[in-house]
Amino acid sequence: MNITYIEKLRNVIAIKGSNLVAGLDTDLLKIPRIFANFSNPVLEFNKCVITATKDIVAGYKINTAFYEAIGVKGAEALEKTVKFIPDDMIKICDAKRGDIGNTSEMYARAYFDNLSFDSITFSPYMGRDSIQPFLSRPGKLVYVLIRTSNSGSGDVQMLKLEGKERLYERIAADYRKWFQEEIGFVIGANHTEDIKNYTESADIPLLIPGIGAQGNELEALMRNIRNNLFLINSSRSIIYPAGKINNKGEFISKIAENTLKINTEINKFKVF
Amino acid sequence: MNITYIEKLRNVIAIKGSNLVAGLDTDLLKIPRIFANFSNPVLEFNKCVITATKDIVAGYKINTAFYEAIGVKGAEALEKTVKFIPDDMIKICDAKRGDIGNTSEMYARAYFDNLSFDSITFSPYMGRDSIQPFLSRPGKLVYVLIRTSNSGSGDVQMLKLEGKERLYERIAADYRKWFQEEIGFVIGANHTEDIKNYTESADIPLLIPGIGAQGNELEALMRNIRNNLFLINSSRSIIYPAGKINNKGEFISKIAENTLKINTEINKFKVF
Repeated sequence: MNITYIEKLRNVIAIKGSNLVAGLDTDLLKIPRIFANFSNPVLEFNKCVITATKDIVAGYKINTAFYEAIGVKGAEALEKTVKFIPDDMIKICDAKRGDIGNTSEMYARAYFDNLSFDSITFSPYMGRDSIQPFLSRPGKLVYVLIRTSNSGSGDVQMLKLEGKERLYERIAADYRKWFQEEIGFVIGANHTEDIKNYTESADIPLLIPGIGAQGNELEALMRNIRNNLFLINSSRSIIYPAGKINNKGEFISKIAENTLKINTEINKFKVF
Repeated sequence: MNITYIEKLRNVIAIKGSNLVAGLDTDLLKIPRIFANFSNPVLEFNKCVITATKDIVAGYKINTAFYEAIGVKGAEALEKTVKFIPDDMIKICDAKRGDIGNTSEMYARAYFDNLSFDSITFSPYMGRDSIQPFLSRPGKLVYVLIRTSNSGSGDVQMLKLEGKERLYERIAADYRKWFQEEIGFVIGANHTEDIKNYTESADIPLLIPGIGAQGNELEALMRNIRNNLFLINSSRSIIYPAGKINNKGEFISKIAENTLKINTEINKFKVF
C-alpha cells in the first residue's frame, strides 16, 4: 500500500531529526572550480551536496530554473540528481507551475511520473483546473504559493478584497476548501504572523523559503511555527560554503558542517 | 541598432499577412507514426510543422511543458526547434514563469539569452521584482497572464477587490503602469469584451490562446479586436491534422492547408 505524502513527511522528519531541506539551486557559474572538469559539473556538485547532507536533512528542493538555464546538460543533471536522492527522503520540485489542464498534465507527467518528485510548488493564478492533474497522482502533494518571501510579494498578494481580506488569505482559504489535505502552502520565512496562524489552525504542511541568504531571523521564525509538518529550505547558505575549496572531501565536509549548524539551530528554537 | 519587440511584431505581421502563431504543443504520444524512427521524433515533427507553416504564420508559441515531459530529449528538441525558426519570425516561450529575482534571472538566461526567444508568458502572482529580469533584456517582451481561457480561470482572476474592480483588471492596470510598453497581455479568446476594451484603449500587444481545440468562435473574437498588435495562437487545430498520415510530404501539405484556412478566416473577419 502506498503511503501518503504527509505520512512520508512525518516519517522522514522523525527519522532524520530534521525539518530542513537543502535547496539545490545549483548555478553553473558559482560552483567551485574542482567540478569544472567533470562531464556534467552541476550533477557532480549535487551528488557531493547530497552525500554531505543526506543524514542531516529531511529532503531536497530542486529549483528547475537553474537546470533550464543550462539546457540539455541541465535536463540530464536534473534527472540524475533526483535519482541520486534516497527514496525515503522528500523530493520537492520547485517549479511554480500552473497552466490549463492539458498543460498541467504535461508538467505532472514530467515531474511526478517521470522524475518521481514527491511534491511541486504551484502558482495559483489560473484556478482549480490548473492544479487538478497534479492532485490526481496518489502520494503526491502540491505546495500552493500563498505569501512569498521576495520584495515584490505584496504587490499582488496583499491586495484587499471586497470583504477586506487580503488576496493571499482568500487563495489560502479557497484552495484549502477545494482540496483539503492534498495541498500545502509556501510561505516565506519573513511572514512569521502568517506562519503562526496557519500552523496553529490546522495541520497544513508548510514549505518555508527565505532563511539564510535571503536574510531572515531563524529564531523569530521558529517561535511562530506551531506544528511539525513544516520544511524550511536553505539553498545558498548550505551549498556555497565560504573560502577556497581544494578538493571534494573538503567540499563535502564544509557542506555537512554548514548544514548541521543550521539544523541544530532549527531544533534548538523549536517551541513544541 | 536593435529593433524593439513591437517593431519586429509589426514587421512580421505585415510581411506574412498573418496574426497567427502556431503552437508547438508537441505531445510525443500524439504525433504520427511516421516520425517514430527518427532519433528525436518531436524535433523532426516540429521541423515539418515549421516548414509547412513558416510563410503563413507570424511566429511560433512553444509550450515548455510538452518538452519538460520528455526530459533530455525534450531539452534537445526545444533548443533545436527554436534554432530552426527563421530569425524574422516571433518566437514565444509559453512557460508562465514568475519567481523571486535570482530565479527569474535564471529563466531569463534560459529562454532569452540561451534559446533566443523574443517573448515569454509570465504569471503575475509574485509581483514586480519577479518580472524585472525578463525586462532587463532589450528587444524582448513579457506577456503577462491577465484573463486565461481555462474553465477555472475565474476562480482567482475574477475576485472582486475593495474598489469593486476585478483582480485581473487591477493586475492589468498595475503592471501596465509599472512597465508600460515592455509588456503585453495574455487574454483567452473567450473573453471578447476584455479583448475589445484592452485593444481599444491602447496599443497593448495581446497573445490570444483558445481558438480551435479549446472551441471558441473566431468571428466573434475578430469583431472585438481593435488594433493590429495581436497574435492568435492555435495549437491542436494546426499540428494534429485529421486522418491517417502516410509520409512527410502528406503531413506538410495537410498542416499547410489547415494553417492557411485558419489564417484566411482571421483575415476575413478583421474589422480594421
